[in-house]
Formats: sequence, structure tokens, C-alpha cells
Amino acid sequence: MTTNGQDTQVDDSFHVFDTTLRDGAQREGINLTVADKLTIARHLDDFGVGFIEGGWPGANPRDTEFFARAQREITFRNAQLVAFGATRRAGGKAAEDPQVKALLDSGAPVITLVAKSHDRHVELALRTTLDENLEMVRDTVSHLREQGRRVFVDCEHFFDGYKANPGYAKAVVSAAYEAGADVVVLCDTNGGMLPAQIQAVVATVIADTGARLGIHAQDDTGCAVANTLAAVDAGATHVQCTANGYGERVGNANLFPVVAALELKYGRRVLPDGSLADMTRVSHAIAEVVNLTPSTHQPYVGVSAFAHKAGLHASAIKVDPDLYQHIDPELVGNTMRMLVSDMAGRASIELKGKELGIDLGGDRELVGRVVERVKERELKGYTYEAADASFELLLRAEAEGRARRYFRTESWRVIVEDRPDGTHANEAVVKLWAKGERILAAAEGNGPVNALDQALRVGLEKIYPQLAKLELIDYKVRILEGGHGTGSTTRVLISTGDGTGDWSTVGVADNIIAASWQALEDAYTYGLLRAGVEPTE
Amino acid sequence: MTTNGQDTQVDDSFHVFDTTLRDGAQREGINLTVADKLTIARHLDDFGVGFIEGGWPGANPRDTEFFARAQREITFRNAQLVAFGATRRAGGKAAEDPQVKALLDSGAPVITLVAKSHDRHVELALRTTLDENLEMVRDTVSHLREQGRRVFVDCEHFFDGYKANPGYAKAVVSAAYEAGADVVVLCDTNGGMLPAQIQAVVATVIADTGARLGIHAQDDTGCAVANTLAAVDAGATHVQCTANGYGERVGNANLFPVVAALELKYGRRVLPDGSLADMTRVSHAIAEVVNLTPSTHQPYVGVSAFAHKAGLHASAIKVDPDLYQHIDPELVGNTMRMLVSDMAGRASIELKGKELGIDLGGDRELVGRVVERVKERELKGYTYEAADASFELLLRAEAEGRARRYFRTESWRVIVEDRPDGTHANEAVVKLWAKGERILAAAEGNGPVNALDQALRVGLEKIYPQLAKLELIDYKVRILEGGHGTGSTTRVLISTGDGTGDWSTVGVADNIIAASWQALEDAYTYGLLRAGVEPTE
Repeated sequence: MTTNGQDTQVDDSFHVFDTTLRDGAQREGINLTVADKLTIARHLDDFGVGFIEGGWPGANPRDTEFFARAQREITFRNAQLVAFGATRRAGGKAAEDPQVKALLDSGAPVITLVAKSHDRHVELALRTTLDENLEMVRDTVSHLREQGRRVFVDCEHFFDGYKANPGYAKAVVSAAYEAGADVVVLCDTNGGMLPAQIQAVVATVIADTGARLGIHAQDDTGCAVANTLAAVDAGATHVQCTANGYGERVGNANLFPVVAALELKYGRRVLPDGSLADMTRVSHAIAEVVNLTPSTHQPYVGVSAFAHKAGLHASAIKVDPDLYQHIDPELVGNTMRMLVSDMAGRASIELKGKELGIDLGGDRELVGRVVERVKERELKGYTYEAADASFELLLRAEAEGRARRYFRTESWRVIVEDRPDGTHANEAVVKLWAKGERILAAAEGNGPVNALDQALRVGLEKIYPQLAKLELIDYKVRILEGGHGTGSTTRVLISTGDGTGDWSTVGVADNIIAASWQALEDAYTYGLLRAGVEPTE
Repeated sequence: MTTNGQDTQVDDSFHVFDTTLRDGAQREGINLTVADKLTIARHLDDFGVGFIEGGWPGANPRDTEFFARAQREITFRNAQLVAFGATRRAGGKAAEDPQVKALLDSGAPVITLVAKSHDRHVELALRTTLDENLEMVRDTVSHLREQGRRVFVDCEHFFDGYKANPGYAKAVVSAAYEAGADVVVLCDTNGGMLPAQIQAVVATVIADTGARLGIHAQDDTGCAVANTLAAVDAGATHVQCTANGYGERVGNANLFPVVAALELKYGRRVLPDGSLADMTRVSHAIAEVVNLTPSTHQPYVGVSAFAHKAGLHASAIKVDPDLYQHIDPELVGNTMRMLVSDMAGRASIELKGKELGIDLGGDRELVGRVVERVKERELKGYTYEAADASFELLLRAEAEGRARRYFRTESWRVIVEDRPDGTHANEAVVKLWAKGERILAAAEGNGPVNALDQALRVGLEKIYPQLAKLELIDYKVRILEGGHGTGSTTRVLISTGDGTGDWSTVGVADNIIAASWQALEDAYTYGLLRAGVEPTE
């Protein structure tokens, strides 16, 4: 395939077509600026998709600007830029249609035209005749081809349309293909199909029309990835996907599991060399740009995708990791993680130590001590599965014979007051010892934990200026042993970041404030350890 | 099917088998107490699954306790309780195996045995011979059958095992079936399979062994729902799923899209009458119990699942909603939303009112006011899905023109102190008005919320002796708008009981104590309303 004059490693016989910037942007909660779109386009091009559908030029100024800037500012290495638009208006001429002209004006070398293929939609939504709709497809495709553009046609609601009137749905495919469309894409616009239906319809349409087909699946039945693969099984050679499955309603077929299945399960080369191993990073980077938390449980790329909890699994993984993973996580740039929990035993502690760069393999007695310590703490309500930093502090304390400490707590106090005027006051006082010095610090906050956090920071920053970079990024509370209500044990998990990474710590007490304090102590201790500061206490 | 002596509407020819409490609990971040497990079991039974796998009795004290309490405390209407465990040890006898005995001791009428069916796993992980593994299956199944239990056998790693050694994998199926297992479940334990593979293998195994088969799919390729349906297409009549797809690594086949596909796409009746319309509520309620944010983009039940953003869609929907949705969202208890306005619609408010015995059907203006009020509150972070009592108070306030009040808060203050000796003090002072009287009360507690709860109770019990019966039974905290850590908005959910029932209330504030106070106020107010006390303020 030639893209902007350059040869790539991937050929034209199979298309990975990304529509994150058009269909993905329809997801509730996503609102992309032109700069966001340019950044995502760069990530997708680096990753190696063949086509990037950038939006609908002419439909809104943002998309028009994106096409102008993308062609000026991005040197595409792998992808071709695609403009999305509709067939010409009923009763007009494509050559005179302003919407069609805007597509040409975008300068995009490829244009995807959306066409109606469901008879009911033609009549109710488009309000024209079935024949005129076919003429709109023919005229628009021919005109764009005459202007030197490559054309793909998206048959909207194809599968519902095929159920209602298979003859007409196929007539739309033939009209598009015969007029010069390179690929006719069958769209499950409402997302209600299941793989067996998709496979049967795609196979029949290929047999009856001879057209080159693509698939566009929405995930409303939870089967978009499988539907996409079912179409490929039936002979489709063009798959439309979005990064992380973003899209209207539930979303679209997720690009990452689709390309991973094609490369790793089908043995079909669809990305440039080395790209697959970059998949986890690309997925997370795009999530950051659209400002959504990356899904922890996304296939292949989620942080939990290769995380093992059950003790049964852990002991087998020690024997051979492939016994409990369907692929080597490094193939997609992810890593195996052992979760430390009361379901786990010695094997998972050893594996976890290795992951942290602490080899415990030789020391059975030490591993036994750590297992005992974890069990004893988990019985009290601690959880180390979600508190890597607290676990590392525990492990290092056992391995090194003493806990790493940077400060000691003498006492603290926090007052929360609801005033008659409805406002709240939160005041904390902390008394600490660090480097032989007694520190007394006070602070206010918008809640009791925030007030304690501020007081701790105020008290320690003079001695440890490294703490200035630390920021609490998440705070979770869980009441254990339900059945006693507010008199129960409380577990607090805190995530803290320093701009280069983040870590989680845990605290448990019968008191939410005391539990929070413990988690804060661990969070600051780990932050100083990470910063390479020598323990002083 | 007969469950605990009662007939249900669903027959034994097709099993919906839920393993949220066993496999679902393996999800990273889930850590269930026995009380959580009991609550989830009640939700699943109400929803109408046929089997609830509760855990591995004997493997840990929590699961043993769950089986004891579930059988004592829950009157199952639809489901049978299932204990999970392993085949007997190599070289022993099932009748003398303590792990097998623990399964019988659990009292569960159905037992699922996990058996190895991949030759490599038998040799490397189980460290026994292929023949002894078959004998372990036969012996354990026969023994449990002799003891009067119904037995299902999970063939772990079946599909990988079938690839490596199809003859042996099938021999395990036959051994289990011939020894008396009702269903042999083929497990894609590592989750690496795709639907076409699943379908081919299930069809062959049915043809070659004649066994009744089930399917257990993990979601590592993003195809667990499709894999489950592919097995059903090939003749499997037992599907293992988890609520919201919770499970090890990426997760398991999600119960909700699987049953929705079976009922709505296959036209196969797998749930009791009316259950499907409760699906969205059940999904969200279980998410609250496990303390995970419900996925907004989950098929069928996510708040975005029927939300439309594209202008193209919106205009067509005005013509006919079915043009752009694959099913009527009310079939699964969800609602269509146009993304101009957020949150709940009129229909769900009316339904909810009806559920509470307040008929709003005739009063469009009132329903509109409630919708507005809910929207405005949800925008601030309130949630009424899991806070029925707070919603009822809001609804009654609108319907009756004024809020029901039994007391008014002037102010409160709470002090939490960590003393140098490591003990904690929690003191609360509350100032209230009730029946024209000013009340000042103080109390200590084992945490700040407990101290406030005690002070509120001490202050009001003289006036409302009915409060003596009230007990806080659960307390949940969620930090909204992650990214600001301890400075974010806090939502508190409190469950309260009075011995005859329980109810949930919500509070939202930038301060965890203030949010808890709001939820406590609603909890006490609702408790007095339930007790038939006349409002005084």
C-alpha cells in the first residue's frame, strides 16, 4: 500500500480502518479538540493502522480544521487519512452538492460515504424512493472516483435492512461496487447482531454480489469483536474499529483485541513489524488524550489482563507461565502480575518479589515469614493486591530486618465541625519526629483526611523537600465485615503520584481517620523511598 | 426444576449458572465479606438464575461460613446453591478425602468439581498420571452421587487440552459423564479461544461422547459472550456466567448480555417472568455491593447503552425510536436517553413510584418536578439507584409539598484523636431541635461516624423511643471525580435495619463526615416514617 508516497510493510489486501476520531468521538463523555484529534491520529499512525477516519469535513468547523491541519502537520508513516460524509441529496447532482464538495475540499485521499441500505430508513429517515437512493449512491461514488479519490461505502443498518429486504440491501452493495467503490462496508449500526448472523449474511453477500466487503460492528450485544472476526471468517477484508472500543452507546469493535486476534490467533499480518508490542502503551496513551481512565479489565491491554489471584493458578504459573495465560503478555506490551491475597501462597509471594526486583527464590524461611505476615495482616483486613507500595514496604522490612522509616508519629488530632450556617471547618494538628527533631504542624482542609494530609506535608516538607512533588490521586474506603455499620473495620486505599508514576497504599483500623493516616504514612514513606532518600529513623 | 422443594417457572433443560461468588470474586479489586456474598446471592436468586456457585467450602473459613449462613438465612425462590471443589487427591479415596468431605459438609445440593482435562496440566500441575486423573474424576463423581448430590464437572483448560490431546480431553468428559455427572462443563480457562473454535469443539465433543455439555468462557480475547453463545449454537445447554462479567484477569462471560441474547435474540426462555426487566437494576445493585462503579458502557445495562449523541441518530429517533435501537430498552429495565439531558426519565420515575406504592401516573406535572429534582441532585453526585429510602423521601416531599421531618440539625462537631499511646478517641457533640425542644447530646464511638451516630441516637431516643430498634448495617464510601484525591466530592451510602427490613440512604458533600451526617439524617427519618411515627417538624 502506498501512503502519501511512502511504502509501508502492510499491503492493501487487508484493511485495518480506524474510526476513533469519527465514530469513537460519539461516545458519551468524549469531547475532542482539534489538538486532541491530531495527537490521536499520530498515535494511530505510529501504531500502524492503514486508514484513519478523521471526521466529517464540512459538517462542523472542528472537523474541517482537523483535515487541513492533519495534512499540514502530520507526516503519516503508515496510514491514509479518510474523510467521512454522506451520499448526495435526493433529486440533486453529486457534482453540485455542497456536502460532497466539502469532502473533496478536505483533500483527503480516501472518502467513506455513508449510504442507506435499509428500505425503511430510505423511506422514513431519508424520505426518498428506493430507486433514487440507488442513484444517489451511484452518482456520488462515480463523481468522487472521477475526482481521483479512493471510495469506501458504509452501508448503514445493513444487517437490519438485509433481514427486512435482502434484495434491496444487496442492490445497494452492487450499486456502490459497480460505480467504483473499492470496499463496501456492511454496518451493524444498531449493534444488535450476533456472530452467526453476521457470518451467514457476509458470506451470502460476497457470493451474490462479488463485491469486496468490510465490516463495521457496534457492541450492543457485547459481541462486536466476535462479529468483526465472524465477518473476516466469511471473507471480509476490511475491519472498522475504534481505539479502546469508544463509540456511540456501548461502543464500537475495539481495535486492540481485533488486531491482536488477527495477528496472534489467525497468524495474519495486519500491522507493521513491532507494532503489536506497543499496543498496551498506545491504548493507555489514547485513553489519556480523551481523558478517560484506561479500563483495567480491557482484553490484552488492561492492567488486570494478565493479573493472577487464585492460589491454584499461582502454583501452576511457577511451573510454567503458559499454563495459565493464553499468550505471552510481552507480545502486546503488557506484563504478568501476581496479586497478593489470602487466596495466594508462597508461589505468588516469590513471583511478586521477582516482579519488584527482590529475589526471594533462595530463602525459603524468608518467604515463609512474608506469607505468614501477609496472612496475619489480611486477616485484620489489609489487602495487598491493590496496595503494591504497602506490600513492597512489608517485603523490604522482612528482607532487610527492619522497616524503612523517615518519620515517626507521636500523635494527631482532627476536628470536623458543622456550623449553624451550614459551612464546615476541618482542622488537623500533627505531632511528628524526624531526624531527631520534634515537629508540630497544623492545617485546614476540605475534609478531615485532606486536613491531615496537609498538616503532614506542612510538617515534613522542610526536612524532605522531595514531598512537594507528591499528589494524592485517588482515595477509596471500604467498610469490612458489614453487619456492624459504622462500628466496623475500615480499610482505606490511597493512590499517590509524583509525576513519573503512581503507587497505592493501604491502612486498616476501626476508625476511618486512623486507617487513612496509616495509608498516608505508607504513601509518604514509599514516595521518599522512590525518590532515593535514605531512611533516617 | 425443583429448588428447595419449590417449583419455579424455569425448567432443567437449560441452565443459567452464576459463578459471581466464586469466579467473579477472583477479579482484581473485589474482596467480598460473607455479608456481601449473602446480599449478592439474594439479588441473583431474585433475578432468577438457576444455580448460584457460592465458593469453595473448606478452602477458606469465609466460604465455609457463607454456605452455613446462606442455607440458614436465605429462602431461595429460584436458585440452587452450588459448592465448588476439586476432584480427590491422587492416590487416595474420595470417601476419605477431607477436601471432598468439606464439600458434602457444606450441605449444598449441587457440587461443581473442577477436573483437569489438559494432559500437560495433569502432568505438570497435578503431578500424576493421565490414568489416575481419570480415576480421580470417576471416584469423586461416584462418591458425591452416592451421597445424594447432583454433580457438575468443570473440565479446566478443556479447549487448550483438546488442541494438544483431543482423545484425552474427551476421555475426561466421558469419565465424568459415565460416573454420573449431570453436566460436563468445557472451560476456556485461559480465555484464548474464539467463537468458531468453541463451536467446532463443542459440536464434536457432543457427537463423540453423548454427554450433556456446559460452557465456561473467560473474556481474554473479548469474546466471552460470543463464545458462550457459540457453545449454545453447538448444543451446550448450561452456561456459566458472572454478574457484570467480573472474574479473574479480564473477567468471565457476562451474565447480563448472555441471558439477554438468549431471551431476546434466541427467543429462549431462561429466566422467570418479568426478571429481564429487572436486569439493569440488578446489575447496578451488585456493582454497589462489590464497591465497583457500574460500567457506563456495559451492553444492555450501562447508563450509556441506549444513549444517543449523534445528531443524525437523534433526528431519526424522533421519527421512530426503533430505527436506532436494537431492542426496546424497557425490556431490560433501561431507558433511552438523548444526550441533551442526563439521568433518569419520566417512565422510570413513574415505575419507581408505583413500586413504592405512590401512583404518579395521573400527574404529569408532579412527575416532571421529580425528574428535575433527581437530575439536579444526581448532577451533584447523589445516586438513587442504591438509595431507595432517600429517593422515597424525595418523592414524598414533592408529592406532599413538604419534606417529612422529625428533627432539625443546628450543628455538630466531631473530634478524632490519635494519642501517643496508640489509642484513639472519637467524640461527637450534636445540637438538634425536635418537638420544639433544643437537644444537646454528646457521645463517643469507635470512629467519627459512629460517634455522630451515637450522639444522634442519644439525643433523639428520649423523644422517639422507636429509634432503639434501628441498627446501621452497612456503610459505603465512594470518592467521585477521581483526580483530586482527598479533596474530592464524597458519596456515602448507609444501610439501616430495624429487624423487619432494611433501607439505604445517601449523602453527598466535599467532606466525608458531612456526607455521612446527611445519610444518617435520612436513615433515621426513614426509620421513623416506616415505624408509622407522625412527622413533627
